[in-house]
Amino acid sequence: MNVEFINPFLSSMLNVMSTMAQMELVPEKPRLKKDEIAMGDVSGLIGMVSDQAKGSLSITFEGPLALATMKKMVGEAPDEVNEEITDLVGEITNMVTGGAKRLLSEKGIEFDMATPIVVSGPNHRIHHKAKGPIVIIPLKNELGKAYIEFSFDD
Amino acid sequence: MNVEFINPFLSSMLNVMSTMAQMELVPEKPRLKKDEIAMGDVSGLIGMVSDQAKGSLSITFEGPLALATMKKMVGEAPDEVNEEITDLVGEITNMVTGGAKRLLSEKGIEFDMATPIVVSGPNHRIHHKAKGPIVIIPLKNELGKAYIEFSFDD
Repeated sequence: MNVEFINPFLSSMLNVMSTMAQMELVPEKPRLKKDEIAMGDVSGLIGMVSDQAKGSLSITFEGPLALATMKKMVGEAPDEVNEEITDLVGEITNMVTGGAKRLLSEKGIEFDMATPIVVSGPNHRIHHKAKGPIVIIPLKNELGKAYIEFSFDD
Repeated sequence: MNVEFINPFLSSMLNVMSTMAQMELVPEKPRLKKDEIAMGDVSGLIGMVSDQAKGSLSITFEGPLALATMKKMVGEAPDEVNEEITDLVGEITNMVTGGAKRLLSEKGIEFDMATPIVVSGPNHRIHHKAKGPIVIIPLKNELGKAYIEFSFDD
């Protein structure tokens, strides 16, 4: 199941960043790995539930990229990750997951989304504990890196 | 909705820690606050979805308490938070949420659980982004502190 989720989540992420923040991110090749872990400064996490599967998604940003995204969107940004930034990352996580949900629904795959949780703290790591492999897609531009990761119980 | 979830989550947490690890934790009074945030070194997060509501739960441990929990359970523990510890915290999060799900089901409240995500990193902070208030229950013993937090869209 994981592989067919790649394009919907990736294209939704690129679309949200491009339309919300005029921010073009270049994706690396998606990787399927059990032992690779994204590290960053602010992450949005969301749980997904359907009759077919359960899973989790995370979008992890390096701090400078998250701050630059806010600056592009509203013209100014704080100097460090604060409540405004965690709200923005929660909103981006919701929009990316919602966009992927619509694309997957067209393929007959339906799921419900839980509410987002945002984690802040320098160099934290995200460990998805679903039973299936973890798909990681690194993305970057000149301002920094981000990672989409997701995993489902097979 | 949040308030009636307090006792099921709290009693499930105390029960899991007591039966799994012979670890007695003393809860502080639960607090309903919008601006309080748990801080710790390893957190288990899980999304919850039902027809009535969507939400998120987190269980955050100070590092020494997570390490002591593993030592109590299996007789030895690593010196720092590693994959064994994140697996354990994911498992505890699953068990606590599953226990609360059974207790709430007896009251006619049903929900589905997504899969757990574990975050590691010194002093990270958890920000629940559901629309309702956040319930925080600090717990502690002589080895350190933990926090259960949850929030639901009202």
